[in-house]
Amino acid sequence: MNRINTLFNIKYPIIQAGMIWCSGWKLASAVSNAGGLGLIGAGSMYPHILEEHIIKCKKATEKPFGINIPMIYPQVEELFNVVLRHNIKIVFTSAGNPMKWTSQLKDQGCKVVHVVANTKSAKKCLEAGVDAIVAEGFEAGGHNGKEETTTMTLIPMIREVTDIPLIAAGGIGSGRAMLAAIALGADAVQIGSRFVASVESSAHAAFKNRIIETGDGDTLLSLKNVVPVRLIRNDFFNEIHALENQGVSIEQLKNVLGHGRAKKGMFEGDMENGELEIGQVAATIHNIIPAGEILQTIIQEFESAKKEVCKFEL
Amino acid sequence: MNRINTLFNIKYPIIQAGMIWCSGWKLASAVSNAGGLGLIGAGSMYPHILEEHIIKCKKATEKPFGINIPMIYPQVEELFNVVLRHNIKIVFTSAGNPMKWTSQLKDQGCKVVHVVANTKSAKKCLEAGVDAIVAEGFEAGGHNGKEETTTMTLIPMIREVTDIPLIAAGGIGSGRAMLAAIALGADAVQIGSRFVASVESSAHAAFKNRIIETGDGDTLLSLKNVVPVRLIRNDFFNEIHALENQGVSIEQLKNVLGHGRAKKGMFEGDMENGELEIGQVAATIHNIIPAGEILQTIIQEFESAKKEVCKFEL
Repeated sequence: MNRINTLFNIKYPIIQAGMIWCSGWKLASAVSNAGGLGLIGAGSMYPHILEEHIIKCKKATEKPFGINIPMIYPQVEELFNVVLRHNIKIVFTSAGNPMKWTSQLKDQGCKVVHVVANTKSAKKCLEAGVDAIVAEGFEAGGHNGKEETTTMTLIPMIREVTDIPLIAAGGIGSGRAMLAAIALGADAVQIGSRFVASVESSAHAAFKNRIIETGDGDTLLSLKNVVPVRLIRNDFFNEIHALENQGVSIEQLKNVLGHGRAKKGMFEGDMENGELEIGQVAATIHNIIPAGEILQTIIQEFESAKKEVCKFEL
Repeated sequence: MNRINTLFNIKYPIIQAGMIWCSGWKLASAVSNAGGLGLIGAGSMYPHILEEHIIKCKKATEKPFGINIPMIYPQVEELFNVVLRHNIKIVFTSAGNPMKWTSQLKDQGCKVVHVVANTKSAKKCLEAGVDAIVAEGFEAGGHNGKEETTTMTLIPMIREVTDIPLIAAGGIGSGRAMLAAIALGADAVQIGSRFVASVESSAHAAFKNRIIETGDGDTLLSLKNVVPVRLIRNDFFNEIHALENQGVSIEQLKNVLGHGRAKKGMFEGDMENGELEIGQVAATIHNIIPAGEILQTIIQEFESAKKEVCKFEL
């Protein structure tokens, strides 16, 4: 029995990443209904918006779903309170110290998973007593680690420090990549980018279309001195890249960036002045289809790749 | 039958990367004798030195071995002439245009493989008529692509543009990672870093020991505006990193770098002022053992990981 399936009471060990501006109740419920684990991305939500999404998600699915809370945003405490008040039993935390909320959430009966990008944070997760770890490689979209460790090398590194249930993330958008993650020692996968380009994602249509056009080398890890984040190269990207090359201070950079650039790009569809967070795997995404179909395709690819690999003789 | 095994007439689809200062005749012959394909790294050799290595390698093994020639170094023409004069039948070219030498080498009966880091170069390889492609991800040590595409995402991207024999490189130092590469669609793997930390590698003992101490996040892709190269963070790295952050010109940077820093570090053992090229996978390398033992360990790990994966039920 797969440990992640058991932990969350799901059919397939596939988690849809909780992403800002892209993963509301529609996407999360679609993935959960299809047998994976959908996550509502609370990072871009005010507490009352998260509340709405939770209520709608419960109406849309009887299957388990969870909430992802990045701990760098304001109103984190209020977000956690919403989660607890609505009796949510699966919480993914990211971008912060797992010691801060894990025991409180577990006391309330939550399964707690924390996202890491290096072995040091993985060790902190063990100390905090999380139920599982997401290890996310450099190729992933959005926020990322300063170590720049890729999924191929990160999963074995994390496996050297712990045997607890491990979810691989970063660069996974197909059944082949899922099989590769399992081969590396993961129990399950977390998939972000591929689900952004789904019918149910709340990303703006222009952003979804841009993902389909994204090729090899069109994303780059940026803002390394503030919070590393993988972005599509556009005017916004070029602007901050030029500033970084001029060696401006972090404060100056933050001022120029201003606020709301992620919303402007991913949610409102400004493809040049907005911040467009997506993973390298975008280069192999070629259509916008329902989330359930994405999940079924991945499962089929996984099974057929597994057959191939099992026939592979040295 | 594995296409790479057939192409090179080898037992295992494992290629030892041709690396400057680390892979002379001792390492190449040890790997070939163990059933893989050893490569002499000609990038750090004068033509007469390469000649010596070829002669010694032929004495040390009756198995096939090859030569890697990075096409950015001086005396490339002389190196190719040495290769042809000594009737070498396997040539890996890298860091340059595959159109330049492929047909001439193939006319002489050579199998030609070119190393790429993006889909554009892979398409050029097809045009040039290479026999196989090495696709090398961002996590690899030494020279690298500007696209920063990781092995996990690069292999599927290359597979989308070609069906020719494909060798995955970057982040592969174990049988699990080898299995992951096969799952992603590769026919074989090229392994560098793991073989640098072998008894037969010509790397300085201090460098081999440094690899063992290397942890998560201790290497970084550097010199992005000259030729991107993955290095261990040391005084040399900090020096060039500071210059890059100040926004100095490429010419200024080249002047400060001077020559011979790679030799000073990897071959002469200066751990602070030398250039130390190694992949992220170094963080999971914990011993210096004979190359044949490394190969056997990888094979065993591969077989046992394969059994696990074949039992993995969704």
